[in-house]
Amino acid sequence: MSLFVQKYGGTSVGSIERIEAVADKVAGFRGQGHDMVVVLSAMSGETNRLIALASQIQERPDPRELDVLISTGEQVTIALLTMALKKRGYDACSYTGGQIKILTDNAHTKARIQRIDIARMRDDLNGGRVVVVAGFQGVDEHGDITTLGRGGSDTTGVALAAALNANECQIYTDVDGVYTTDPRVVDSARRLERITFEEMLEMASLGSKVLQIRAVEFAGKYKVPLRILSTFEEGDGTLITLDEEDDNMEQPSVSGIAFNRDEAKLTIRGVPDKPGIATRILAPIGNKGIDVDVIVQNVSAADGTTDFTFTVHRNELEGARKLLEAVSTELDARGVVVDDRIAKVSIVGVGMRSHTRVASRMFEALSADNINIQMITTSEIKISVIIDERYLELAVRALHSAFELSEPRAAG
Amino acid sequence: MSLFVQKYGGTSVGSIERIEAVADKVAGFRGQGHDMVVVLSAMSGETNRLIALASQIQERPDPRELDVLISTGEQVTIALLTMALKKRGYDACSYTGGQIKILTDNAHTKARIQRIDIARMRDDLNGGRVVVVAGFQGVDEHGDITTLGRGGSDTTGVALAAALNANECQIYTDVDGVYTTDPRVVDSARRLERITFEEMLEMASLGSKVLQIRAVEFAGKYKVPLRILSTFEEGDGTLITLDEEDDNMEQPSVSGIAFNRDEAKLTIRGVPDKPGIATRILAPIGNKGIDVDVIVQNVSAADGTTDFTFTVHRNELEGARKLLEAVSTELDARGVVVDDRIAKVSIVGVGMRSHTRVASRMFEALSADNINIQMITTSEIKISVIIDERYLELAVRALHSAFELSEPRAAG
Repeated sequence: MSLFVQKYGGTSVGSIERIEAVADKVAGFRGQGHDMVVVLSAMSGETNRLIALASQIQERPDPRELDVLISTGEQVTIALLTMALKKRGYDACSYTGGQIKILTDNAHTKARIQRIDIARMRDDLNGGRVVVVAGFQGVDEHGDITTLGRGGSDTTGVALAAALNANECQIYTDVDGVYTTDPRVVDSARRLERITFEEMLEMASLGSKVLQIRAVEFAGKYKVPLRILSTFEEGDGTLITLDEEDDNMEQPSVSGIAFNRDEAKLTIRGVPDKPGIATRILAPIGNKGIDVDVIVQNVSAADGTTDFTFTVHRNELEGARKLLEAVSTELDARGVVVDDRIAKVSIVGVGMRSHTRVASRMFEALSADNINIQMITTSEIKISVIIDERYLELAVRALHSAFELSEPRAAG
Repeated sequence: MSLFVQKYGGTSVGSIERIEAVADKVAGFRGQGHDMVVVLSAMSGETNRLIALASQIQERPDPRELDVLISTGEQVTIALLTMALKKRGYDACSYTGGQIKILTDNAHTKARIQRIDIARMRDDLNGGRVVVVAGFQGVDEHGDITTLGRGGSDTTGVALAAALNANECQIYTDVDGVYTTDPRVVDSARRLERITFEEMLEMASLGSKVLQIRAVEFAGKYKVPLRILSTFEEGDGTLITLDEEDDNMEQPSVSGIAFNRDEAKLTIRGVPDKPGIATRILAPIGNKGIDVDVIVQNVSAADGTTDFTFTVHRNELEGARKLLEAVSTELDARGVVVDDRIAKVSIVGVGMRSHTRVASRMFEALSADNINIQMITTSEIKISVIIDERYLELAVRALHSAFELSEPRAAG
């Protein structure tokens, strides 16, 4: 028998009927003899409803009070699920973040978990009770209610699994796992049975948003096996695990194709190519809190100047452009060019480490479809290219096919 | 400068606009330099909404989990009011019952307050902060959330006022005080400036429901001056205080007329008049948890039998009738007669103690209007009669006039 921590998101507990369905699911596992800890989000829409109430009073609601307010959402669902479990004859007990207790720092609305007191949960589990915990929330050392930020319930689930040394942390959501790429773009996109934490981080941060990055980092750090499953369909989902070396040999080089069209590109042309130039260009951007993603500096032209290009989130384009134009004048550069019709496509896979031909295969595939690569950036387990937005779907399909991602992955 | 504990009910915080209005009110007092503790109910309708959710899952929701669920209602309003106070430039801090902490027994959904930890509230008050507390809720010794039962926010207000030794506990509601009788029945009904705790208890339990009986008892026990005021209208409301002997001399004998039509009358006829007969009749009723109100036993008839009459809540009439019919058979009595077309009218006043003619004046007034008295019951500060329901309004008006309640009461 195992100890499972299961987390159900807002859609999974969005109505009484769905809460009843979650109770059936949890009761099924408990009936098989597993020890069960269940972490819940608020009903879908509820957190937004509460924030809207607060916004009617304060444009920027007081963070401490906002946490008092929005933490009620999960308190409602844990009570209702516990009732549903009791109705089915299963003993169960609900806990708020403050009751359990999930100790955090005092950074209201984005608190970090510091410690979890497992004594009462252990007592309950030993007594055969299902433990139902409010996700997304904790308390600071003064007993003030804190919340962990959007998607924080995933983090609560992983943290409880780590603290209790659970066999698996299962994240139930409205998709049935992690896919090789977005099935809306590639029909033959395939659910991955396994993926490593590192790959998942790259996939998630690149746009295949299934669960909170922080939760994945946390799971990786504490080696908590994490599984993504669908609340609404049967299936094994995708297991996110450590990168086992011997598995690795069997794995294909690329696990998935991630992409996004959230970025815009800025180029400052004809800047003098001398030491410290990157800092002089990027410091004003960073100082304004604008995140820079891909950065490329071309080799010097014959006149000793170079072009310097980087991407930012599209929402930040105008702010970044103004800052860059000031820099351009200051450096006596040839001017600034921007382009917000770009897309980023990335291939991700721990197997790349040992397969050096991956990059050239990627470029060949894009070239075969006449897709021009504007920028390239690489990491150990990921290669990203910036292309014209119009070619995004074409590029994703070409790469999905080139790396044979539609074929079932070899058993790990 | 004073320390006030103010309690605002669900109607007073029923919308963002009303919460803003309460913030204005509280800010006004704080601006005058008073130390302020504010106790809030949930938005009107919210507790019922939450109970309805629970009822969809369990016909009788698990009490522990029901408390987890419904305690969220006040948690929402305290956060919102605190934001509204901060927006006005007043420092403030919200607390749940568990945070403050209001320690109760573990009788979920009807818990009793045992102790209140005032350290943090004192710190806040000394620091110039308004303390905003969730009414209706507490925690037991295990940190489990409890609630105090319907209207429990009044009790929270009084308990905090007692613990903090406040100058006054002010209950803001949708009526502007306690009246000599229901103004819907008697046009000239008059707001009382003062009333004693004992009178208030009799008035409240007899149907003039302004605030929770438990809160009044609590205030009387701890000698907390209690004031009923309107949230929506200016005015001094009604102050509920101890019975000061010297005031008493100036007071008229009767303070108010209470009434209800919730009761039904049962009579068992021709029972043998011997010791222990009352117990044999009433024990089966009490054992079923049915509360009996007025009880009258007539003197024996020539045949050594008597008629025994009592009243119960109308909702309990059928249950009580069945039990009584079994008793009737068992005792070989002449049968059971019931009447649910009755009303109870009471005159209430501490002044009755020293004014012996009050009872006869009451009976004279009713008689003058040809109202037949079916049953009479008396206590030190109250005389109640059971009459035909049709004469209820007539009786109330006759008594209100007979005791000159429309005239302003002499200054206390």
